[in-house]
Amino acid sequence: MSKGKLIIFSGPSGSGKDTLLEVLFTRHPEIKFSISSITRDMRPGEVEGKKYHFISREEFKERLSRDEYLEHNLYVDDYYGTPKKPVLDAIENGDDIILEIDVNGAEKVRKIIPDAISIFIMPPSFAELEKRLRGRGTDSDEKIAKRLASAIGEMKRADEYDYIVTNDVVDRAVDDILHIILADRLSLDRQKEFINEVLKKC
Amino acid sequence: MSKGKLIIFSGPSGSGKDTLLEVLFTRHPEIKFSISSITRDMRPGEVEGKKYHFISREEFKERLSRDEYLEHNLYVDDYYGTPKKPVLDAIENGDDIILEIDVNGAEKVRKIIPDAISIFIMPPSFAELEKRLRGRGTDSDEKIAKRLASAIGEMKRADEYDYIVTNDVVDRAVDDILHIILADRLSLDRQKEFINEVLKKC
Repeated sequence: MSKGKLIIFSGPSGSGKDTLLEVLFTRHPEIKFSISSITRDMRPGEVEGKKYHFISREEFKERLSRDEYLEHNLYVDDYYGTPKKPVLDAIENGDDIILEIDVNGAEKVRKIIPDAISIFIMPPSFAELEKRLRGRGTDSDEKIAKRLASAIGEMKRADEYDYIVTNDVVDRAVDDILHIILADRLSLDRQKEFINEVLKKC
Repeated sequence: MSKGKLIIFSGPSGSGKDTLLEVLFTRHPEIKFSISSITRDMRPGEVEGKKYHFISREEFKERLSRDEYLEHNLYVDDYYGTPKKPVLDAIENGDDIILEIDVNGAEKVRKIIPDAISIFIMPPSFAELEKRLRGRGTDSDEKIAKRLASAIGEMKRADEYDYIVTNDVVDRAVDDILHIILADRLSLDRQKEFINEVLKKC
């Protein structure tokens, strides 16, 4: 069986990438998702084992010492990490697996798994991004300005990605993500076994 | 405006690539098709300017001397050529253009336009290929054997292509071709201008 593929998935806050992933997994439940380990407290609405595995800092450090993470990061006081085994298992089993990660994490993972494909989600315009980040509720101007600055910083690194998807209309953007994932399944590397199978019978 | 892409499209006799292209252009009429110049006589059912421009050998040689072909070939007594201008114009205008060509022509064109993407159409199995080639009518066993040998020869070079599409069910195969073409439109090269446009307003 031909191997699966790691799909690195990034986009600034306000790009709507979480909504895209939800719709994507509804339409293609065979696509796997890489669940991160995280040591911070669970927030309202979060569920263990959906986006994150919530573990203690002690456990994280233990796993880290056993080299169980593809990449990890310390943010303020909390660890974030991408468990290595589920990603490598998925690829080995011929499954596609999506890793949602920021531009810095993407940079690290690309070095370890160079044939990963990477997708960056863009807002349709800066005006729309600003509207989305403001529209979130009652955040202070300062907080919004900080988020905007961080979004701009991420977008400036969009050119490190293989593919750019603009999230204007959700269903259209999900179609685009699927074009990328499904086209990759047709790439020569993933079809060589099939070609050989047909040729063997000639 | 970002540039378009040349899509090299090949597959053995019996792969059903003509049917795929017909359905593809019905669903996506914005995709262009590279019309070849050819010096042989028109066959029943053929139309000037659809797949071919039928021209005289004198005219072909004149155009050839003016370097108007991307690639050309002499087959028995007749010339075949891919006019350069429509292909380069399409790319410049941001259009995708499909060039249906055999494995030898594909090899030549790839050298001239290295960022072309190439798609090879495979039959689902050798048994099915044989059935399709036999099913064509009242051809002699010898003729069928010749066609099969030529198809096998082409399939052995499928590994020179970027993508492999299996033509089992026509609509599914057309979906696959569209995934490849539409994913390429999302590639970084073709999205750089959009990223810069968004960033300029930040």
